[in-house]
Amino acid sequence: MRPTGKLHLGNYMGALHNWVNLQNDYECYFFVADLHALTTDYADPSNILPNTREVMLDYLAAGLDPAKSVLFVQSQVKQHFELPLYLGMITPVGWLERVPSYKDMQENLAEKDLSMYGFLGYPVLMASDILLYQPKYVPVGQDQQAHVELTREVARRFNNFYKLNGEEVLPEPDVLLTPSPKLPGTDGRKMSKSYGNTILLSDPEPEVRKKLKTMVTDPARVRRTDPGDPDKCPVGDLHKVFSSHDTLEKVYAGCRTAGIGCIECKGWAADALVQILNPIQERRAKYSDADVDDVLKDGAARAEARAEQTMAEVRAAMKLA
Amino acid sequence: MRPTGKLHLGNYMGALHNWVNLQNDYECYFFVADLHALTTDYADPSNILPNTREVMLDYLAAGLDPAKSVLFVQSQVKQHFELPLYLGMITPVGWLERVPSYKDMQENLAEKDLSMYGFLGYPVLMASDILLYQPKYVPVGQDQQAHVELTREVARRFNNFYKLNGEEVLPEPDVLLTPSPKLPGTDGRKMSKSYGNTILLSDPEPEVRKKLKTMVTDPARVRRTDPGDPDKCPVGDLHKVFSSHDTLEKVYAGCRTAGIGCIECKGWAADALVQILNPIQERRAKYSDADVDDVLKDGAARAEARAEQTMAEVRAAMKLA
Ligand code: SF4
Ligand code: SF4
Repeated sequence: MRPTGKLHLGNYMGALHNWVNLQNDYECYFFVADLHALTTDYADPSNILPNTREVMLDYLAAGLDPAKSVLFVQSQVKQHFELPLYLGMITPVGWLERVPSYKDMQENLAEKDLSMYGFLGYPVLMASDILLYQPKYVPVGQDQQAHVELTREVARRFNNFYKLNGEEVLPEPDVLLTPSPKLPGTDGRKMSKSYGNTILLSDPEPEVRKKLKTMVTDPARVRRTDPGDPDKCPVGDLHKVFSSHDTLEKVYAGCRTAGIGCIECKGWAADALVQILNPIQERRAKYSDADVDDVLKDGAARAEARAEQTMAEVRAAMKLA
Repeated sequence: MRPTGKLHLGNYMGALHNWVNLQNDYECYFFVADLHALTTDYADPSNILPNTREVMLDYLAAGLDPAKSVLFVQSQVKQHFELPLYLGMITPVGWLERVPSYKDMQENLAEKDLSMYGFLGYPVLMASDILLYQPKYVPVGQDQQAHVELTREVARRFNNFYKLNGEEVLPEPDVLLTPSPKLPGTDGRKMSKSYGNTILLSDPEPEVRKKLKTMVTDPARVRRTDPGDPDKCPVGDLHKVFSSHDTLEKVYAGCRTAGIGCIECKGWAADALVQILNPIQERRAKYSDADVDDVLKDGAARAEARAEQTMAEVRAAMKLA
């Protein structure tokens, strides 16, 4: 993840939550992509460093476990500078210009000048970040699959040019499709930092309840006595993701008959969120600054050892060493 | 210099010879640009490593002195991977597309597919290589001045975005214009590896004399009795660069009056070349493989220490550390 600041429930359900589960079945590498942030925030990078720390703290709070996985910051592993330089040498400019997100982001972030060489090379950076660990899988949601496809193409091209004793050095990773349920923010649109509609993993209970109170509901339910439809209500969507089957039944029955009020219904949704957030916040409180430093230092050393193994093969295949 | 293989007299007079002199007045950093070679030779990089060694051996043979200067190989100093990534973030793609050599090289090397991201970013790599040592001067010949101009623009842009305690971190280097006399190859065109018309620094005397014998002369001098003009003769150009004033007088007088034959004149030119090449070849013979290894290792360590000093300032100015 990019260091965008404190993570929210959308980040959690779309990625972090899945990663926590993957740790038990796979050898995992999770990093904070501080160099990626430079592609868009080069004009004022002052938030990258503090945000990187916050994201790492959220990783730990969510249950990423340094005893199971390798947790690190991209720029602290020097091979993340070396591999993109090599992969850039064989990546056609045309491939990069055709990446759908290239034009999209330039339009969406029209207030920023994104006509930079580094921004154009963003997919090369991403391919390097993945291939550096020679992974079998990349865990991504439905909407991220296209990004992995370019990484696979870069790997294929590398393997065509360079081999080590006849063997491929950068195997094409497969997508490991992870669930990414639709999660609405308080305004009903997709939960996203840029919309200012998020519930943070670190929001204390009163803040969560306050945010829920302002959340938009089924617009058809104007008065308490009007029946509503949870399938047309963002609060209903939250219930579907976080509430128990029993609560969900009460919501559907009560809403459709006007048997419950929205305030009561939102209270139940808040209960469910708080139950998810409580253990996360308890873990967050346990990590001191020094603990985070230790995790980062240890993670960087482990990531670097693994990455150097790949780079030794890459350099040998390219006959540079 | 790029690792193109054994260096020739053109490389010597255009660059190396000047560098040897600069060592006495400046703290100098000289490297072999093996990463630059990848921008054009990515499809088959197998010559880069052996050529890098040959160039370093020629550096030493020509008189670059590890006791005076820092001699190293670009890829052995990891900061040469890090700085281009940062500078790429702020370099407009349009600047790179407008570099005159970009389109030129794509046309000149039409047999190679140079539409790669790495090739487009070549000037970023070059700017990094220079700025990494925060130099006051870059010693270049007349025809290389444009390259330094882009480096200055990148530095200016960096300094506009980022400052460290109000100070600029990457001062704009000035061009130190060094003489680069016109040196013809055996076919009369500019001496260049790609024309196959070179006299190598490592060519033994018989080889030098043999090459001189095949060298083209003033086309007006068809017969021994025809007068010629040293100003219209490539051999005359060699005399102007390498021969003594006395010899030069004999050449002008003898040629214009048909008083000397071209074979005699070429013999004098060969004498002058051999006199230049002898001490170079003597030094070359003194360096064992192990000596070169030691020079490279020591040079990389010294370059890295200096480069890391710059990078610490760069990262701090960018608020990345
Ligand atoms: S009762 Fe619940 S589901 Fe129905 S409209 Fe109100 S908040 Fe939405
Ligand atoms: S005499 Fe010497 S300078 Fe004159 S044409 Fe012959 S080679 Fe050239």
